[in-house]
Amino acid sequence: MSDTLSPFASLPKPPYFVVMFSSRRCPGDNGYGDMAQRMADLAARQPGYLGVESALGDDGFGITNSFWANEDSIRAWKRDVDHLDAQTKGRQHWYERYEVRVARVERSYSFEARIDG
Amino acid sequence: MSDTLSPFASLPKPPYFVVMFSSRRCPGDNGYGDMAQRMADLAARQPGYLGVESALGDDGFGITNSFWANEDSIRAWKRDVDHLDAQTKGRQHWYERYEVRVARVERSYSFEARIDG
Repeated sequence: MSDTLSPFASLPKPPYFVVMFSSRRCPGDNGYGDMAQRMADLAARQPGYLGVESALGDDGFGITNSFWANEDSIRAWKRDVDHLDAQTKGRQHWYERYEVRVARVERSYSFEARIDG
Repeated sequence: MSDTLSPFASLPKPPYFVVMFSSRRCPGDNGYGDMAQRMADLAARQPGYLGVESALGDDGFGITNSFWANEDSIRAWKRDVDHLDAQTKGRQHWYERYEVRVARVERSYSFEARIDG
């Protein structure tokens, strides 16, 4: 498990895989918040799960990038029974639209401001 | 150019490439808004640029996924002189931390709710 206080995922060196989930939510919660938390907890226990980063703007457009060790772990999570149920509810109630892209991360770099004093 | 009213990028079928930029902003604008718009406009004119999606939460944590035809176009944009200047200012004034991951998109799928009536 990574540092739950930071929005940044703690990831190994590439290569690894990412599922980019871009979505626009329907107005209202309709049980979304509870389910999203349950799915996040469940995903974090899947084999091959490496971490997740998520940002949601005021306009309801959000991006969640989840990181995985390999493609098999992504496919297994997509087929998980509880997750399949959430996917169905998502299409029925929560999302106006979503786009999913699966990619292989080839390289990475980072910056962190030095804290002086 | 894609539909500027939609937060979703209009992308071709994979394969293509993505630069995932996750960041936490420093408090205050400090000229960020103007520069971000200029860089978005400039990026959109680069060879190989396919589109961008971006979400910024209330906590200052944001994700921008920009999409490119190939790795050469990503490297060229990273080396663009105006963009290099923005990168330096970003590290000096705008970002507490950022993480960049470059990946090859292998597959994609989508959902859009049917509008009835």
